[in-house]
Amino acid sequence: MINELKSVPEPTLRRLPVYLHYLKDIYKAGKSEVSTTNIAGELKLDPTQVRKDLAYTGIAGKPKVGYDVEVLISTIEDFLNWNNLTDAFLVGVGNLGMAILGYNGFKKYGLNIIAAFDNDPAKIGREIHNVPVLPIEKLSDLIKRMHIHIGILTVPATEAQKITALMIQGGIEAIWNFAPASLKVPEEIVVENAGFTTSLAVLTRKLAEKLK
Amino acid sequence: MINELKSVPEPTLRRLPVYLHYLKDIYKAGKSEVSTTNIAGELKLDPTQVRKDLAYTGIAGKPKVGYDVEVLISTIEDFLNWNNLTDAFLVGVGNLGMAILGYNGFKKYGLNIIAAFDNDPAKIGREIHNVPVLPIEKLSDLIKRMHIHIGILTVPATEAQKITALMIQGGIEAIWNFAPASLKVPEEIVVENAGFTTSLAVLTRKLAEKLK
Repeated sequence: MINELKSVPEPTLRRLPVYLHYLKDIYKAGKSEVSTTNIAGELKLDPTQVRKDLAYTGIAGKPKVGYDVEVLISTIEDFLNWNNLTDAFLVGVGNLGMAILGYNGFKKYGLNIIAAFDNDPAKIGREIHNVPVLPIEKLSDLIKRMHIHIGILTVPATEAQKITALMIQGGIEAIWNFAPASLKVPEEIVVENAGFTTSLAVLTRKLAEKLK
Repeated sequence: MINELKSVPEPTLRRLPVYLHYLKDIYKAGKSEVSTTNIAGELKLDPTQVRKDLAYTGIAGKPKVGYDVEVLISTIEDFLNWNNLTDAFLVGVGNLGMAILGYNGFKKYGLNIIAAFDNDPAKIGREIHNVPVLPIEKLSDLIKRMHIHIGILTVPATEAQKITALMIQGGIEAIWNFAPASLKVPEEIVVENAGFTTSLAVLTRKLAEKLK
């Protein structure tokens, strides 16, 4: 696919899963074709924006009819690399870590959490939602030996940088950061801050704009 | 403040909490002044971008010296409305709902979760992290009577639209949606999709771009 290596704007990446949800809904409801105008109308977005976003995935639309829903779904999933399962480690088995381990839908999105790490002796050795909890001391070494690409960080802010260093030492490629902390990492490491605060900033500001 | 009503681009809103984390870090470390060049350098962003983002908050920088760190922190917090506590209801006391109830840092961000709702009789009547769990049937009525502005949605995707309808019926203003579903809401309702999938899309695609 020509576009496979192209860097995509983040706002586009953030909208693609929203399109996916919508497309799966209408596919389940029996619809087989959809136009950008339909998508834009339903999701209250600009049709030009939708067309541009979808163009990044490399899909070709038919004039008038639009897209084949099934093809569009799998094209977006391929583009997001959700059809390849990537192994991941999770560090920090607190409330949020457990919620993530308990969410069994991640495989649909290409994420396969194969081990969790914590420093609490009461948790180490246990299995949580079928994922074994191992001691932090083993983190770097296992990332290296198992060629793990994704580290999920669900530790308190105060521990975040320390664990990040251990992940990088092991050779992690990408960190999904749920800790409310800004991580210092070498340029080549992908960091996606999934912290509640980023999303909450959008919510509280928009609400303030609306109510004032 | 002149900019208080101005609509802000979402990418800017998403970066503001990242600046905040960094500013709080250096403030704790004893730094009292900071320039956009410092911020941009540390966070690997374009200095012009940082300057533009901060300009939205209405803060004035001093040439050469930059900003007073403490003033900048409180200006961003004001701008995000994080210095006013807003009451919120949470619906869906599963793993994720519990993680959110257990995260006691939300008050720092202006969010005060005062009740949770579920349809599981084993949960109703209990208190989870000091928040009472009430039956779903009371949701609409209590939103109305207590003038609740924010609804946090942590139910499964299949329940999301139904609960959204109940929230809107009660008069909710903003929905923080953690369910992997696209919600249909009237134009005036603020919806922020905090779903894992949005963030995961950015992570998996960037990793794919990097590894290919």
